[in-house]
Amino acid sequence: MSYRRLMLCAFFVSQFVAGQSKEEKMPREMPSYLLGYSSQNSEKEKQWEQKFREGIVPGNIRENMKRLSARPHHVGSPYDKDNAEWILSKFKEWGFDAHIETFNVLFPTPKQRVLELLEPTRFVAKLQEPVLSVDPTSGQTAEQLPTYNAYSIDGDVTASLVYVNYGNREDYEQLDRLGISVKGSIVIVRYGSGWRGIKPKVAAEHGAIGCIIYSDPKGDGYFEGDDYPSGGWRPRFGVQRGSVMDTDYPGDPLTPGVGATADATRLAIKDAKTITRIPVLPISYADAEPLLSALKGPVAPEGWRGGLAVTYHVGPGPAKVHLKVASDWALKPVYDVIATLRGRDDGQWVLRGNHFDAWVNGADDPVSGQSALLEEARMLGELHRQGWIPGRTIIYCAWDGEEPGLLGSVEWVETHVDDLKNHAVAYINSDSNERGFLESGGTQDLQSFVSSVARDILDPETSLTVLQRSRLDSIAKAKDAEERKNFRSHGDLLVHALGDGSDYTAFQDFAGISTLSIEFGGEDDGTQYHSIYDDFYWYTSFVDTNFVYGRALAQTIGTAVMRLADSDLIPVDYSPQFEAITKYEAELEKILKDKQDEFTERNLELQEGVFTATTDPRRPIAPPPAEAVPPYMNFAPMKNALEALKKSAEHYSKAVSAWRTNGSPELPEHAKQQANTDLMRVSRLFLNERGLPDRPWFKNQIYAPGAYTGYGAKPIAAVREYMDEKKWKEADEQIPQVAKIIESVSAGIEKAAQDIEGVLPQTP
Amino acid sequence: MSYRRLMLCAFFVSQFVAGQSKEEKMPREMPSYLLGYSSQNSEKEKQWEQKFREGIVPGNIRENMKRLSARPHHVGSPYDKDNAEWILSKFKEWGFDAHIETFNVLFPTPKQRVLELLEPTRFVAKLQEPVLSVDPTSGQTAEQLPTYNAYSIDGDVTASLVYVNYGNREDYEQLDRLGISVKGSIVIVRYGSGWRGIKPKVAAEHGAIGCIIYSDPKGDGYFEGDDYPSGGWRPRFGVQRGSVMDTDYPGDPLTPGVGATADATRLAIKDAKTITRIPVLPISYADAEPLLSALKGPVAPEGWRGGLAVTYHVGPGPAKVHLKVASDWALKPVYDVIATLRGRDDGQWVLRGNHFDAWVNGADDPVSGQSALLEEARMLGELHRQGWIPGRTIIYCAWDGEEPGLLGSVEWVETHVDDLKNHAVAYINSDSNERGFLESGGTQDLQSFVSSVARDILDPETSLTVLQRSRLDSIAKAKDAEERKNFRSHGDLLVHALGDGSDYTAFQDFAGISTLSIEFGGEDDGTQYHSIYDDFYWYTSFVDTNFVYGRALAQTIGTAVMRLADSDLIPVDYSPQFEAITKYEAELEKILKDKQDEFTERNLELQEGVFTATTDPRRPIAPPPAEAVPPYMNFAPMKNALEALKKSAEHYSKAVSAWRTNGSPELPEHAKQQANTDLMRVSRLFLNERGLPDRPWFKNQIYAPGAYTGYGAKPIAAVREYMDEKKWKEADEQIPQVAKIIESVSAGIEKAAQDIEGVLPQTP
Repeated sequence: MSYRRLMLCAFFVSQFVAGQSKEEKMPREMPSYLLGYSSQNSEKEKQWEQKFREGIVPGNIRENMKRLSARPHHVGSPYDKDNAEWILSKFKEWGFDAHIETFNVLFPTPKQRVLELLEPTRFVAKLQEPVLSVDPTSGQTAEQLPTYNAYSIDGDVTASLVYVNYGNREDYEQLDRLGISVKGSIVIVRYGSGWRGIKPKVAAEHGAIGCIIYSDPKGDGYFEGDDYPSGGWRPRFGVQRGSVMDTDYPGDPLTPGVGATADATRLAIKDAKTITRIPVLPISYADAEPLLSALKGPVAPEGWRGGLAVTYHVGPGPAKVHLKVASDWALKPVYDVIATLRGRDDGQWVLRGNHFDAWVNGADDPVSGQSALLEEARMLGELHRQGWIPGRTIIYCAWDGEEPGLLGSVEWVETHVDDLKNHAVAYINSDSNERGFLESGGTQDLQSFVSSVARDILDPETSLTVLQRSRLDSIAKAKDAEERKNFRSHGDLLVHALGDGSDYTAFQDFAGISTLSIEFGGEDDGTQYHSIYDDFYWYTSFVDTNFVYGRALAQTIGTAVMRLADSDLIPVDYSPQFEAITKYEAELEKILKDKQDEFTERNLELQEGVFTATTDPRRPIAPPPAEAVPPYMNFAPMKNALEALKKSAEHYSKAVSAWRTNGSPELPEHAKQQANTDLMRVSRLFLNERGLPDRPWFKNQIYAPGAYTGYGAKPIAAVREYMDEKKWKEADEQIPQVAKIIESVSAGIEKAAQDIEGVLPQTP
Repeated sequence: MSYRRLMLCAFFVSQFVAGQSKEEKMPREMPSYLLGYSSQNSEKEKQWEQKFREGIVPGNIRENMKRLSARPHHVGSPYDKDNAEWILSKFKEWGFDAHIETFNVLFPTPKQRVLELLEPTRFVAKLQEPVLSVDPTSGQTAEQLPTYNAYSIDGDVTASLVYVNYGNREDYEQLDRLGISVKGSIVIVRYGSGWRGIKPKVAAEHGAIGCIIYSDPKGDGYFEGDDYPSGGWRPRFGVQRGSVMDTDYPGDPLTPGVGATADATRLAIKDAKTITRIPVLPISYADAEPLLSALKGPVAPEGWRGGLAVTYHVGPGPAKVHLKVASDWALKPVYDVIATLRGRDDGQWVLRGNHFDAWVNGADDPVSGQSALLEEARMLGELHRQGWIPGRTIIYCAWDGEEPGLLGSVEWVETHVDDLKNHAVAYINSDSNERGFLESGGTQDLQSFVSSVARDILDPETSLTVLQRSRLDSIAKAKDAEERKNFRSHGDLLVHALGDGSDYTAFQDFAGISTLSIEFGGEDDGTQYHSIYDDFYWYTSFVDTNFVYGRALAQTIGTAVMRLADSDLIPVDYSPQFEAITKYEAELEKILKDKQDEFTERNLELQEGVFTATTDPRRPIAPPPAEAVPPYMNFAPMKNALEALKKSAEHYSKAVSAWRTNGSPELPEHAKQQANTDLMRVSRLFLNERGLPDRPWFKNQIYAPGAYTGYGAKPIAAVREYMDEKKWKEADEQIPQVAKIIESVSAGIEKAAQDIEGVLPQTP
């Protein structure tokens, strides 16, 4: 799994602004010390960072990829373990204190898969990605996981077929208007527009008894560009594997909230809430085309039609299909490789991770990110040998088991949550890496920081910094003049909120740790996402062929890790976070207003008879149901809390500015300790130990994935998701507790500001 | 040809508002007399109209269609002449004074057509629509016109191929940025987004030496719905024939501005400006697919991709094609059937027309409209026998030669232009008719009138009037709350401006006659536009199968003809026309503002380096050229003229209202004569005898087609088209003369108002 998919789905596209304007706005006399650094440390740091960046070698990243992706290495496979041990040996070789931490998790692997069309004609789906002679690893069939969706319940069903587009909730509203029910049917749904696990979940909620997910050529096949192997796009028989675990909690389904250690108490499989309720199977469009062609019933609405040369019908039937799925449900081991480079202060940890397990060979996902991570670690080790000792302890994490459901990182965080809460400064994640523009998600307390890093990295394709290039890309892609104006007025990279697409999830959502997720992308020449063809031959033919974006990733994240580790004060800046949360609050008000307008209009049109007057009797579409217009909600508590947050963020900035204005002298050790302890604590204050309503595992009250989006972030989920459910009263009731969280964060920031001011000479 | 294509292209979608609000707003004591009628005549008229509508029989329309579409009947074919004679006999049978008027026109028919792919593989295009056993007339191959584009120049060219999307000017701007020139190439272009004749015109302007136009399945094939014969949409080998005559002037290419009578002075063919500069051939997607598949080069931009199961590339090459086209350029006869029902006042004529020639069998285009027209005429004859004598003379016109280029109507209008200017009250056109919503284009002096008619016609599918149904459809399709509000506040059908898609063109654009074009549509179950499959079997299987919309069309237009013919005063209302022209003026200001903003932004981005920073070196796209920001223009003369128009329109309304308030007494004959002469004259005042810049044939200064849109209207073309060309100074210079036209129209209306007031008792 990779949160890059989120990008493809265009759900929450990362937006960047960059450039020099921020620096230009700084008073002329302000020295360009690094944020959070004393003057002396700042200069030293810049030299070490420079050395680090110069030492990153694309050829090494290439060799890492070649080794790690040489054979299929899914959870529980021999080569997965082999990779873990190889990574361990490398960390040790580079001077890290490294070990493997093992968890035992529920990871079903396929035993039986059958998909047949029984009526009106017979067709048996191949469910197999063919070996290609040009692609040397595509023939490792004995080691490849068959095409399947992990955590599909076992099942054997036969029923008529219905096409349900992306299978989101609004698609079923459309089906209702067409008079079509999926009750007792098997649905066929296309990949895209949200996380795959939502598709069987919503299908089951509507009474479907089976779910087939296929890759339409309009999503990632010939519609987009030449397909593999002549081009990089998904070929006719290419299949997207993937987890369909439900969104209640990530990680091992049997040990929610606690580490899946050998002696952990486990749920019975039947009690695991995150296993699907109906059987699910992913297929290629070659296997889907006969099924879709056999459907009759209404022609699919225009937005539902894909790129196949067929008329897309909705059904139900006359196509009748038989779907059978059965898995081996034995526990499997995951091997997290944890490597520590101890800092002068071992009480503060900077964490950096990327998973290494793949669905098959996984050159792009995740080896492109893991290979860069290893090159970072090698070079940090090299600097260490040359005398550099990080200020804080650095922990590199090579996660296993991300693909099935963030297993490695979630179980590790659950196991070590208390230590992490005491010691973690930040977690930086990566996953797949491609060509293009720097994108960053996470918590916006690190937005100024990551922007300062991006200002120091050169884009491999242009003479610009990656910050400048991203900023210009934002201007190019802005939807209107107002958005362009906003981008032009900012000097920063805008950090977008994260959902749960990769290993940052437990850090941010469960443990309250400041998070960044970083990657390059946006210049795709194809995708073989979760296919056997996501391999070294494909990646080096069509993606970052000379690994210069691998180098850029290692340079960006390695610099960030060093700069976070060596700063005197943790280099946070709360004003961008205030701005982001203010935007999220405004979005809630807009959702309410839009729904009020929409339902008022709909009810008026129902009264006017618009729907009945305009439906074509040959293709009748029923009117939508009348809806109660949402009542006004009281956002005042949140807005008042945001006012307080604004003041405390400004106060903290002022305190740090005063230090800089004074020439950034060394701070007394106890004062640094106190301030950094304050600052680490601020991130924890986003948590509410009761968690989100109905999703207690997710404790962060500002940052969270959606129960019905998966990858997609739903900031302030406690309020937002009730609004999505049209439960206005419940949403309203959540506002005060979110406001309290913001107030508490604000008080935490205020304390840090006061503590810093306490040790500074008074400014006149 | 049918202006219905305009609708499919979503260029200028007709917008309707309807309902009771207008009537509700009338003072309670105002009697519901018909607009322009004395109280006495109003009541009589309503009874006759009621009788008319009740007499329209769907079965007759069906029989008309069966007869007229029984065999191919293109210009010059035996069955075309046979149809003309049959129509003539019918008019005579129904009591009309009818004759055939013959013109001799240049109408090329194909002698040779070759299209082959020479490299990288060989493929010979079939260029043939197959006979279908279920479709009885599809086998009349001996009489069918082969698939071709009329007025393509003869040519024999071999060159590499480039795909140019719809072939509009902005598509070539995109090609420029991709670094691709079509100079010396043959272009392949898809049907849609503007009139087909623009495609070879723009291609030739960019140096292409040949043009192939194909029907993409996304335009009207399986993407839209099941294809023929299982559904109504264009099948694999279906081809759209059609004229590609240039837009300088419609009608016979050899006799611009004068009737193509036997003794007319004719241009040499080589001097005819409206013949294409490069050879053109239309093909099916079955023939296009091997060509498109053989293209390499950049992947086509997303908006350029159609519904074929291929990756759309732009080229150029390696596909190399050979295209050969040769025609028989002999003159052919067109037979207009002109049928007169003389009114009490033979000095004022109400004209009604629909063409009868087709590309092949043409059940939909144009026989669906022609069959309704004939049923109207039958019933008018019947009323006449029962004692009804129209107030004004009614002239029914069955046009020949519309498909090649409005030949029949243009030559007739050119021949009779002086008489028409003296006598014509209005021209009402129809063409293809389908199921759905009433749509009306034309001059908005008739908007209140046509709305009043639409209020009296029942929709066959609902219990609503066609006015109500159209109004509710407008609300359903409105793009935003403001548009919905506007629709809700109006009681009228909004009449949109017409381009040149059917036989109204010469009446409106050349002779300055008030015009309406009326049809039902919007509930399509397919199209076989300009194919052999547009026939009786297809139409009665998939379109208006029981001819109830044929009945609605005959009822609507027949009622309009009667109501126009019988009124005391011509039932115009200038306020809607003032509103429409005000909107067109505002559009010009918006175009200027948008271009100023666009070019300012573009130039800024060029300066910032946005384009070079964001282009992918693997798929380079050059920056667009810098553009001079347009200067401000002086719209004041037009706005001042519109103020005058507003006042005179209100004055005229007040004068008519006063008459109604007085109980609508009979007006003295001389007063009626004077007022009606005034009113007829107002429409002529839209003309400027010099015509549009570069298009002297088009004399109407408000209503005109675009030189680069064809079907699509370009109101106030003299200004607008210079703006489209970025000739801001020239555009600015046109404003005063357009203002003068509006002032002159305004003065004409003022005179009519004063003349009416002169005969009325003074209101206190």
